[in-house]
Amino acid sequence: MADKLKSLEDLFHHELRDIYSAEKQIIDALPEMIEAASSSELKDALTNHLDETKNQKQRLEEVFDELGISAEGEVCPAMAGIIKEAKTILKEEASPEVMDAALIAEAQRVEHYEIAAYGTACAFAERLGHEEIKNILGEILEEEKNADEKLTEISESVNEKASV
Amino acid sequence: MADKLKSLEDLFHHELRDIYSAEKQIIDALPEMIEAASSSELKDALTNHLDETKNQKQRLEEVFDELGISAEGEVCPAMAGIIKEAKTILKEEASPEVMDAALIAEAQRVEHYEIAAYGTACAFAERLGHEEIKNILGEILEEEKNADEKLTEISESVNEKASV
Repeated sequence: MADKLKSLEDLFHHELRDIYSAEKQIIDALPEMIEAASSSELKDALTNHLDETKNQKQRLEEVFDELGISAEGEVCPAMAGIIKEAKTILKEEASPEVMDAALIAEAQRVEHYEIAAYGTACAFAERLGHEEIKNILGEILEEEKNADEKLTEISESVNEKASV
Repeated sequence: MADKLKSLEDLFHHELRDIYSAEKQIIDALPEMIEAASSSELKDALTNHLDETKNQKQRLEEVFDELGISAEGEVCPAMAGIIKEAKTILKEEASPEVMDAALIAEAQRVEHYEIAAYGTACAFAERLGHEEIKNILGEILEEEKNADEKLTEISESVNEKASV
């Protein structure tokens, strides 16, 4: 961690840099997951979420500009661990249907990390009086929740196919 | 991963071992987080959750017995990453109030990993017709969601104290 945590504002900046690192790692990892997916519905959902994530990264850069701080300086070890787990799955011998179910399981772990992280960052922004930033983070939080729900929806038919 | 993923049942066993490894890592990590907490409400919540997690580990062992498979053989790299992140925070210089806010942020990442993992395992158990196991996993899922909500509740006063 680059900063000492003297204040909640310091911790807020740390949280934002952690999330920014997580988003960059997700942007790097998603293409391989999209490539490995067989269900066209899953491929489309992951592809849309890759676009959405790139857009989220840009909005985070606006937040860093607004705060006058650098976006860099942190690597999110948690997202590194989640992606390591996803990459292990990608190397497994699996039927296309079981691989799809496994990809959804991993993608939902990614989404839930983000739901926790944006939830915290939103609460900090509100407490610190960063109203506009809180709105941006709140919008992204909703996108992550929607992405997670979409994956749950897709998992129903994917799991059904994987179980026959 | 120990198993090839030939079927959804194989993937289900993998998921259970991943969760079991995650729970064991949480049991190892929580005492240090409890020690670092200053708010008595937070200390109590984390202590209760440590007891709850030990109980969840036991119930998972019953699930492995029921399935007639070994609980061991996986290390959850995602939880290792989340805990690495939490331990980095513990080493930071921070005021007690800011440290409490940081501990809640990390604990909610842990909870959300578990919400995602148990959510997936529950859906697999249902699809595979493991009714009793699905009920056990569903109960634990609810406990993880409640633990997350409790942390959100505590975060309100903790963040307020951290921001003055």
